[in-house]
Amino acid sequence: MNKILVANRGEIALRVMRSAREMGIKTVAVFSEADRSALHVRYADEAICIGPAPSNQSYLLGEKIIEACKVTGAQAIHPGYGFLSENAAFARAVKEAGLVLIGPTPEAMEIMGNKLSAKAAALQYNIPMVPGTEEAITDIEEAKQRAIEVGFPILIKAAAGGGGKGMRIVEKVADFDEQMHLAVSEATSAFGDGSVFIERYVTSPRHIEIQVLGDTHGNIVHLFERECSVQRRHQKVIEEAPSAVLTPEIREKMGRCAVDVARSVNYVGAGTVEFILDENLDFFFLEMNTRLQVEHPVTEMITGLDLVKEQIKIARGEALSFKQEDLKINGHAMELRVYAEDPLNNFLPDIGTLQTYRTPKGNGVRVDDGFEEGMEIPIYYDPMIAKLITYGKDREEAIERMIRAIDEYDITGIQTTLGFGKFVMQHEAFTSGKFDTHFVGKYFNSDSLKTENEAEAMLAALTAVKMLQQEKTALNQSAESEQSQSNWLRNRKNYI
Amino acid sequence: MNKILVANRGEIALRVMRSAREMGIKTVAVFSEADRSALHVRYADEAICIGPAPSNQSYLLGEKIIEACKVTGAQAIHPGYGFLSENAAFARAVKEAGLVLIGPTPEAMEIMGNKLSAKAAALQYNIPMVPGTEEAITDIEEAKQRAIEVGFPILIKAAAGGGGKGMRIVEKVADFDEQMHLAVSEATSAFGDGSVFIERYVTSPRHIEIQVLGDTHGNIVHLFERECSVQRRHQKVIEEAPSAVLTPEIREKMGRCAVDVARSVNYVGAGTVEFILDENLDFFFLEMNTRLQVEHPVTEMITGLDLVKEQIKIARGEALSFKQEDLKINGHAMELRVYAEDPLNNFLPDIGTLQTYRTPKGNGVRVDDGFEEGMEIPIYYDPMIAKLITYGKDREEAIERMIRAIDEYDITGIQTTLGFGKFVMQHEAFTSGKFDTHFVGKYFNSDSLKTENEAEAMLAALTAVKMLQQEKTALNQSAESEQSQSNWLRNRKNYI
Repeated sequence: MNKILVANRGEIALRVMRSAREMGIKTVAVFSEADRSALHVRYADEAICIGPAPSNQSYLLGEKIIEACKVTGAQAIHPGYGFLSENAAFARAVKEAGLVLIGPTPEAMEIMGNKLSAKAAALQYNIPMVPGTEEAITDIEEAKQRAIEVGFPILIKAAAGGGGKGMRIVEKVADFDEQMHLAVSEATSAFGDGSVFIERYVTSPRHIEIQVLGDTHGNIVHLFERECSVQRRHQKVIEEAPSAVLTPEIREKMGRCAVDVARSVNYVGAGTVEFILDENLDFFFLEMNTRLQVEHPVTEMITGLDLVKEQIKIARGEALSFKQEDLKINGHAMELRVYAEDPLNNFLPDIGTLQTYRTPKGNGVRVDDGFEEGMEIPIYYDPMIAKLITYGKDREEAIERMIRAIDEYDITGIQTTLGFGKFVMQHEAFTSGKFDTHFVGKYFNSDSLKTENEAEAMLAALTAVKMLQQEKTALNQSAESEQSQSNWLRNRKNYI
Repeated sequence: MNKILVANRGEIALRVMRSAREMGIKTVAVFSEADRSALHVRYADEAICIGPAPSNQSYLLGEKIIEACKVTGAQAIHPGYGFLSENAAFARAVKEAGLVLIGPTPEAMEIMGNKLSAKAAALQYNIPMVPGTEEAITDIEEAKQRAIEVGFPILIKAAAGGGGKGMRIVEKVADFDEQMHLAVSEATSAFGDGSVFIERYVTSPRHIEIQVLGDTHGNIVHLFERECSVQRRHQKVIEEAPSAVLTPEIREKMGRCAVDVARSVNYVGAGTVEFILDENLDFFFLEMNTRLQVEHPVTEMITGLDLVKEQIKIARGEALSFKQEDLKINGHAMELRVYAEDPLNNFLPDIGTLQTYRTPKGNGVRVDDGFEEGMEIPIYYDPMIAKLITYGKDREEAIERMIRAIDEYDITGIQTTLGFGKFVMQHEAFTSGKFDTHFVGKYFNSDSLKTENEAEAMLAALTAVKMLQQEKTALNQSAESEQSQSNWLRNRKNYI
């Protein structure tokens, strides 16, 4: 394997190409007409345009990507995440074209891509699931009986439902009959089907996922957990490894479960098993993602492994070069997804031009991005500008470093999640480790950032007064010539 | 301690400020008139101009720096490396002014700043020295007797000498009389003193140094070694940790010796004990540097410690938070000093404007620098632009990553040591670990880089021919609009 086509764009395309280059493997970029001058196109050894901007006319066209391999002589495809990365039909077409997909088998994708078959696979290994009914119920008395068995609070979910419709949280048994009535009638009127599932309602859920790696020789290991509970719009925005709450025992137990889930589909490549963790540190299987995750860098930082290189080696048929007992957690890593979004406007995308774009540097700071100053964030794709990753000897240092890096990150021209990230890093619920997936809803509102700005302004004013009181000395003082709008300059004083 | 003045410039000033900021400590920059718009000035919370460009009118003026502390209310001074960092008189003046110097005591600086007192201190702990005469000799027969005791090859050094004058390497006893005659007469005519020292000549020396940390409570630990044998003009240009040749036993022995050397002067703060290592892995004390070294990041990468933070904590009177047995080596780190120098012109400084300046990114890459695109490298100071540091799970990965990062580093407008760095990383003597301080003299000449360029050009031509032979398909191909001179674009092909 000496040439790989990367069927993706942005930071993940660059990230994959960097590892390939370190392995002495040539890279081919594909790009849409909107991405002509994108960094991944410049970085690759070869680049090939595959169509107009909308994804379904370019990045989602499997046949064009396979053809691009034939033209360029690429023997393998790395799909990144999103786009075609979990598309079993594409995985099959790649195989049939005599090419290698750097990812799991189509069969594993298919089983894990469907909630029911995924659950069935996991149950073979007795993986814990959120307690609840296996089959839909309509009878109120039967439902109440099951609810008591499951334990309150419980969730009543319409069997035919979706989008929260016909969904009811019931705190105690006394409320059950009334809520069940409401749920059934809502479900009947919305879906024409009044049957429901009863499920334990996890009041303070944390999203914890386990990274796994499997090779073609039947070896599967886990690379510990990532905590991804800080979410907005049900999507992750801050991730860390390890989690602030897992004990070594629970970590090992979750790790073993994750390996079993992977084994249930003879998993090959890098994958992630997602769990929900409750207040008692009981965990339940959610789903398995059959691709490299956005947040994989935090795992790389604490294990010292390069996950893309591992993926490539597995795709070449190599056996894993380490065993479970060789793997250890070193230090702590934190990731903030820097989105072109306005946190004060419900995190709606705020695309535009990066008028200023300076990334932080120094010890323990990694920036995986796909943009340069002056570039535009295209409207067609995910508005992620960069992943800002910090590493420290412990959680406290990773957080301090994240705050320092956020302060150093200089983006003007669009709104980003940087300020939101700082708010989280400084919030007591986060620093103490006592948070769940409700963090944003519970603590963040449009005043959160304003308050911080006001406090900063107040402090700056007070400091200025103090400075005026100080005696100016005979030092050779002179004005700094450049006036910049850089972050660095905010709140700083010069002796003129 | 809530405000620190950094008495330095360039990358090290920024590096110190970053750690201070992570600790919640405010920073004060000092700057010369030439450094008005330097990044360290922008980064600091406050900045104060201390004089004209030449160092002896600004950065070397201890009294101005102390005055700047008084004006700004800074309680401590971090001197960085170079400038006043090993100046005992400055260290005393800082103390007398009621301020804290983040560094060792003036006494330790004084003893280690002098070759004779340093040697005397180390000898208290029986630290191995290069075998040789303790006192100057003039008598040829006596000298020959001592030379036989020391063992050939030996070095005859003029007692009053310097700069290589009156220095003679003698391979075998038969040559001794003639060489001794020549050395004595050379020394007599050059210095008016014919007396000489006899010393073992280490034919294949490696420069290995040990990082130490001592606190004010008497605890001293070492943080393993750095290999700094790749030098040009007797100055380090590539460093790594750990060394490719040390065994765990010798590492431990050198570490213990380094701690003993530090103990001999009750060392407080971060310091480095330098050794010479011969082909038999015997090591000899050279000197101790009583400051943070340029190459300290490679130690940070393999230990996970932030050395500047440790320095600050020690200066605050805190005890080290770890013991020797807590420290472990994790992975491998490589550093290339990116100098504004022309490797093809004997590494002479090549200052000017950074017309293009793009730094590499991604997993395992750290750039400590002090410049931005468009800035000028001032003629007044050390021409180091940046330190490019890579980290990998092993030496091979650190090297592969360094090559990738060098290829990604895009500097135009001046000559740099980047191409030289790539030459070293790809050289068999370096990759095999079989090299010494003669590496540059032995392997590098003006053809070294040319050859690489020619080979690349040849490869590009061959690939182009191959591409022309390939059938152009019906893919939606279009031209990339931007034509850039970026490194990334060299040797790449686009489908037009």
